[in-house]
Amino acid sequence: MEKLSIIKIGGNIIEDEASLDAFLQLFSNLKGKKILVHGGGKRATSIASKLGIASKMIDGRRITDKETLEVITMVYGGLVNKNMVAKLQALGIDAIGLTGADINSIQSDKRPIKDIDYGFVGDVKKVNHSAIDKLIQADFTPVFCAITHDGNGQLLNTNADTITSQVAVGMSKIHETSIYYCFELNGVLQDFNDKESVIQNIDSKSYEELLKNKIILEGMLPKLENCFDALKNGVHKVHIGSTAMLAKENNNFTTITL
Amino acid sequence: MEKLSIIKIGGNIIEDEASLDAFLQLFSNLKGKKILVHGGGKRATSIASKLGIASKMIDGRRITDKETLEVITMVYGGLVNKNMVAKLQALGIDAIGLTGADINSIQSDKRPIKDIDYGFVGDVKKVNHSAIDKLIQADFTPVFCAITHDGNGQLLNTNADTITSQVAVGMSKIHETSIYYCFELNGVLQDFNDKESVIQNIDSKSYEELLKNKIILEGMLPKLENCFDALKNGVHKVHIGSTAMLAKENNNFTTITL
Repeated sequence: MEKLSIIKIGGNIIEDEASLDAFLQLFSNLKGKKILVHGGGKRATSIASKLGIASKMIDGRRITDKETLEVITMVYGGLVNKNMVAKLQALGIDAIGLTGADINSIQSDKRPIKDIDYGFVGDVKKVNHSAIDKLIQADFTPVFCAITHDGNGQLLNTNADTITSQVAVGMSKIHETSIYYCFELNGVLQDFNDKESVIQNIDSKSYEELLKNKIILEGMLPKLENCFDALKNGVHKVHIGSTAMLAKENNNFTTITL
Repeated sequence: MEKLSIIKIGGNIIEDEASLDAFLQLFSNLKGKKILVHGGGKRATSIASKLGIASKMIDGRRITDKETLEVITMVYGGLVNKNMVAKLQALGIDAIGLTGADINSIQSDKRPIKDIDYGFVGDVKKVNHSAIDKLIQADFTPVFCAITHDGNGQLLNTNADTITSQVAVGMSKIHETSIYYCFELNGVLQDFNDKESVIQNIDSKSYEELLKNKIILEGMLPKLENCFDALKNGVHKVHIGSTAMLAKENNNFTTITL
């Protein structure tokens, strides 16, 4: 099977133009077929507030009402995504910016209302791996923002980490797919106070040990559970670290396998 | 050669949800390979003004400064384009929303500063017909907004009529390409005060007669010059009329040939 890398970057990289440019350079140098997934960041919040749309939070979780979804569609789907595509084109990468609605690539279900009505938030239902693969086989590089659709004309705000793992699981059916989750730290740390104490390899067995010894902090838990979930569903490897992990000479990041 | 239809709609259709839905229904019923190009409309102006960005006009022409380009990228490239793609998917059309930066489909030159600095406005330089055709051959339906790029990472605001004719000229190299310009009227009128006096066919010869007899009003002149330009550069036919011209039973619109 052909190798495929799926790289996810978060708001911290997108918001700082120098960081973004440095990342895009590393991304463009990455060999082989690849997909980029980007989150949102604070830009949407600041534009929403300028437009007089208040951020609605319930129990610390953001609610995506109609107006907020419009801002997200403008900022993630338009401003952030299309500028990134233009920058990648300048670096020689034949990028194509997508939401899950484009080529019906990612369908989701509007999250059902239980205790909280999250509004226009989607939970991924189906990744159209063969449609995405048509773009990849045409030597295009898909750049996904964190928006999906329900198949009935409604766009839905969707978590970028989940999009990454679900697209990776889908693409694993036809490619040897690896995920690179870029975040603020160099990897999963042995000692949270020592940013250099990166655990280079984690597998199911050592993960159990880490859990038992309470090395994995609460904030990392859902991220790692998500990684093992992807691995169990066919993803080859998951890497977690700073964007620097994409540099060839760098080995200082965490690789997770089953 | 395979037939290809390129349909252009303007702001008046986009801004009214009922008109847009009716148009998308007609578009989805249209047989054969097709491309949609949409203009912007007043939505960008109203969002810009809410964000405190004043519209700058010189001699009645809009200037696209950095902030205005950002709003255009958000509104045309994000909000309008992606919602239209989601609606088309719901109608069974496998749409993909694009700017000229995506798959490097439309490159333009930033308009040189002579008397007026138009800002981030692009004049189309090169249409990548083979990249666009890869999408069409994969049975995807491209939906272009009126944004191109300069190949050096800069997005540029570009006239939607020009995008339509330039993409049509480019695609004419490999397809029998027809343009459908949808606008407010049913077609080119014999008598401007009689909306039903549609001239059904115009060719180079009858066009000269119409000009001589001052039938063509000034507002129509650049549109028609643009049509003949496209025809001279390989486009098969150009149709001008209301969106109703896409309905099968309708013959009441203007068709222009060489």
